Amino acid sequence: MNRWFEAKGENSDVVISSRVRLARNLTKYNFSHKLKNKDAKQMVDDTLMKFEKMSEFENYNSYNFENLDQFQKIAMLERHVISPFLTNQSIAAGLVSPDENISIMLNEEDHIRIQAFVAGSDMETAYKNADIIDDSLSNVVEYAYNSKYGYLTTCPSNVGTGMRASYMLHLPALSGTNKLNGLAAEIGRFGLTIRCIYGEGTRGLGDIYQISNQVTLGFSESEIIDNLSNIVYQIVQQERTARRQYISRKRVSAEDVVYRSYGVLKYSRKISIKDAMALLSELRMGLEQGLLKVTAKHGFTIYSIMIGIQPANLQLIAERELTEEEIDIERAKFIRENLPLIQ
Amino acid sequence: MNRWFEAKGENSDVVISSRVRLARNLTKYNFSHKLKNKDAKQMVDDTLMKFEKMSEFENYNSYNFENLDQFQKIAMLERHVISPFLTNQSIAAGLVSPDENISIMLNEEDHIRIQAFVAGSDMETAYKNADIIDDSLSNVVEYAYNSKYGYLTTCPSNVGTGMRASYMLHLPALSGTNKLNGLAAEIGRFGLTIRCIYGEGTRGLGDIYQISNQVTLGFSESEIIDNLSNIVYQIVQQERTARRQYISRKRVSAEDVVYRSYGVLKYSRKISIKDAMALLSELRMGLEQGLLKVTAKHGFTIYSIMIGIQPANLQLIAERELTEEEIDIERAKFIRENLPLIQ
Repeated sequence: MNRWFEAKGENSDVVISSRVRLARNLTKYNFSHKLKNKDAKQMVDDTLMKFEKMSEFENYNSYNFENLDQFQKIAMLERHVISPFLTNQSIAAGLVSPDENISIMLNEEDHIRIQAFVAGSDMETAYKNADIIDDSLSNVVEYAYNSKYGYLTTCPSNVGTGMRASYMLHLPALSGTNKLNGLAAEIGRFGLTIRCIYGEGTRGLGDIYQISNQVTLGFSESEIIDNLSNIVYQIVQQERTARRQYISRKRVSAEDVVYRSYGVLKYSRKISIKDAMALLSELRMGLEQGLLKVTAKHGFTIYSIMIGIQPANLQLIAERELTEEEIDIERAKFIRENLPLIQ
Repeated sequence: MNRWFEAKGENSDVVISSRVRLARNLTKYNFSHKLKNKDAKQMVDDTLMKFEKMSEFENYNSYNFENLDQFQKIAMLERHVISPFLTNQSIAAGLVSPDENISIMLNEEDHIRIQAFVAGSDMETAYKNADIIDDSLSNVVEYAYNSKYGYLTTCPSNVGTGMRASYMLHLPALSGTNKLNGLAAEIGRFGLTIRCIYGEGTRGLGDIYQISNQVTLGFSESEIIDNLSNIVYQIVQQERTARRQYISRKRVSAEDVVYRSYGVLKYSRKISIKDAMALLSELRMGLEQGLLKVTAKHGFTIYSIMIGIQPANLQLIAERELTEEEIDIERAKFIRENLPLIQ
């Protein structure tokens, strides 16, 4: 029962995950931003109750924001179980599969958001999993659907399929050589967008990026996915070429950087999120490129450590609010305890 | 049979070694710089032969520069067995005790240089050991000695006792807080001098410094040693205070610096002498201050690793001339193999 971020998948040297998100609304209620608190609460409670009764979800975990503190919510966000938008809602609830690979959010920007994650590059499975849920839900609620436009959504950019497909990519070589700015402009012409998962600068923390479709209208789901996947496959090839060039040009230096990153991660006593993400990114590339080797089977992927060291998760583990320095100390501890052993 | 740099001694948290060096000349020959090559060779060969016959030296190793290549000479210099001056002589020889703590050099700046090292702060033993050798040698050769001035030497600054006593100190906290410049001026007033053992900058590589007497005339050996030792003891106290203040002010940061230094030393694949010395200095202080602990009994002191990573020693181990990058690679390997394990 691996979570997607604890597993390896197709092309996972570069592709961390494939995610499909479907936006759906109910005919019975105003769109979320027009929904009074009382009605929002009714929508959330009624819909959650309906879903909880379904046999498909009998082993799912349900949550209600009424019962969650801020750390629990943010930690769910850090694990990508819920969206940033949802964490800012006061009234919200949802269902999550035991492995957290499938999540249904209620009272997000739209009434219902379905998301399905798969490790590595496998958007077909991600879409299939989301589509199954979507079909099930449509049996118990009435979706707002227009035969001309398709699914109706709060934001016009989601009208149509209501689908956003996104690949999460680890691009240390391309971002290290400043090739991502050109790439952003290029893929824009194909209706795609790239953004940093962590941080806002020109180089995302951990070199983790998300590439997704911007257009949801006028194309079928499979057309959107094919277009996205084709472009992403080209980026994967570019990243691999850049990695190989970097390593073959300066093999010992490349090994040295990776091993030193490992050494600092293994021994630091406090570490900032910025430093940790940078070192984990080096280490992830080093492991994927075979510059260093893990000794034993190890449950943790490097990306799962990246998730583990986010502030809310560390405070959740500590079971209390931590100062910034305490977070840096707990982060170093988390890394020491979860870093794979190397040969 | 520990070498001084592989052993611990009194106050060895700060004091690496105590060394006494005696300069002696023979009446039978011109001073070394006035000695023709032929005469130098005769002086060296005759004197070495005489010394080799003495029962005191039957287990000593003798060497003659005729039979040594440049790496062997420089590696002896790196181990402090011979002096920089000697390595630049074409005609030279000497005797070294099996543990290399006692060394007799022939045709240095003076005909004979006797040096005795002891680990930690124990100048009395260092002097005693040098003095015993000095007495023995005076039974088989005739020293140039003047009843008014004492021992006559090539450089007037050595006339008198011919003795230079020097402590080698590890001063990371004082040099890290820029307190050494003031110190240099201060101890100058007591006829002492401080210099970096490694490198020439304001902060010596590895934070290793040597403090020694400048004046050899007009005082007895014990007066010189007492004066030097009193001042050095005060510096040791200052260094300890500075370390304690640094650590108590920022305990976790201090631990973090030391552990990260360990991590980089343990895992780097190539490392410059400058980086290695800086990291080993942090590690040495961390170990001495108890910020991290060695798991098992370990033959290598950190200072012995500092000696081991010098270029000639690495090329001696490799048994060939190395490029600069190869030296950095071999240095990283030497460190990995000799670094103590920590808890």
